[in-house]
Amino acid sequence: MKTIVLCSGGMDSVTALYHARREHEVTGVLAFHYGSKHNDRELPRARHHAEALGVPIKTVRLGFVNDLLESHLLESGGDIPDGHYAEPNLKQTVVPFRNGIMLAIAAGHAESAGAEGVVIAAHSGDHTVYPDCRESFMQAMGQAMEAGTYAGIHLLRPFIGLDKAAIVRLGAELGVDYARTWSCYKGRERHCGVCGTCVERREAFQRAGVTDPTEYEQTPDLPSGPVSSS
Amino acid sequence: MKTIVLCSGGMDSVTALYHARREHEVTGVLAFHYGSKHNDRELPRARHHAEALGVPIKTVRLGFVNDLLESHLLESGGDIPDGHYAEPNLKQTVVPFRNGIMLAIAAGHAESAGAEGVVIAAHSGDHTVYPDCRESFMQAMGQAMEAGTYAGIHLLRPFIGLDKAAIVRLGAELGVDYARTWSCYKGRERHCGVCGTCVERREAFQRAGVTDPTEYEQTPDLPSGPVSSS
Repeated sequence: MKTIVLCSGGMDSVTALYHARREHEVTGVLAFHYGSKHNDRELPRARHHAEALGVPIKTVRLGFVNDLLESHLLESGGDIPDGHYAEPNLKQTVVPFRNGIMLAIAAGHAESAGAEGVVIAAHSGDHTVYPDCRESFMQAMGQAMEAGTYAGIHLLRPFIGLDKAAIVRLGAELGVDYARTWSCYKGRERHCGVCGTCVERREAFQRAGVTDPTEYEQTPDLPSGPVSSS
Repeated sequence: MKTIVLCSGGMDSVTALYHARREHEVTGVLAFHYGSKHNDRELPRARHHAEALGVPIKTVRLGFVNDLLESHLLESGGDIPDGHYAEPNLKQTVVPFRNGIMLAIAAGHAESAGAEGVVIAAHSGDHTVYPDCRESFMQAMGQAMEAGTYAGIHLLRPFIGLDKAAIVRLGAELGVDYARTWSCYKGRERHCGVCGTCVERREAFQRAGVTDPTEYEQTPDLPSGPVSSS
């Protein structure tokens, strides 16, 4: 199946790209610059992997996001909180309906490009407190994409049965160089090691039993707390 | 209910704005510049009516559309066909998943702005050959918007039981000045009078028994053919 892969340059979506390339005919990668603090760190990673695999990549600039949407994840928002993801912290980094917006654009592009599927790296550890990560959203959005296009574009979620540690194990098999992926929401020179997404990254490698090649600013003991993907 | 209204500056969505203002608390208007040949004609009309009603309007520039999507409706596409809408003609003017993209952005904005509903001027005469005008798409997209937001944003389609002539009659009651609305896909100085959307506009006034205030380049007899809204 001809597919378009959404790839941010994070560890999940980079793995999804390598995996999709094994399973499908990947005709393009879409990456989104939506004005987050870490877009400039992650997007060059997405480009690196697309080019390494010889897949055309388009970076879509969503200039409207900082004007229309509010989130601490954005340049226009407040500081990124440290520590384990917990609902109050996490809610500050929600970009409202971000998955809906990216999937809608991907559906239109897939239709124009003659593709039949769109891959998103949604996984079992996605926080259901993000409404647009919930199963009910994904089911409905998949139906909308199928009903709203001539080609009946399929929303593909190959990792929905995997947690983040399982994704790392799969990526290691597929030869993904995780040193060239980005997670940290702060978007500084190196991963901070202590924000919610860095904590999840560190935990995933630890639980997968795969050596973590990431350079962190600091690596205090991982906080106890909800495990992202159990 | 606090609502955001999608308004292009066309006759249906301008009427929807006036109607929503009677039925709801309209907290904002969203207009989209997606690179069509007629955006520069219609968007000033949307702005005129929003300002006349004292409702804040945001124009969203979708710079990526001409790069990612293909359609004769776009500046990057071929010529707009003349004559009554018929499937082969009409397909050339489809912008893939346009409604999906606009509704997704509107859902995110509504969530950020504290609104609970998004109004779209979908009506019974919408061409079901456009996949993203189909009932199955609208139902699924509405579910996705509701499931994918904390506020459970509602997709509102107040005109879904009306045809275009009924919308004109309603707008006349609401005092809409249709001289300040735009339909023609060609986007020239005046409405051409002969493209598919001009033909529908002329028919709607005729069937509504409302005087058409539009200046057309030409007004040959309306072609016989499928009536858009029967």
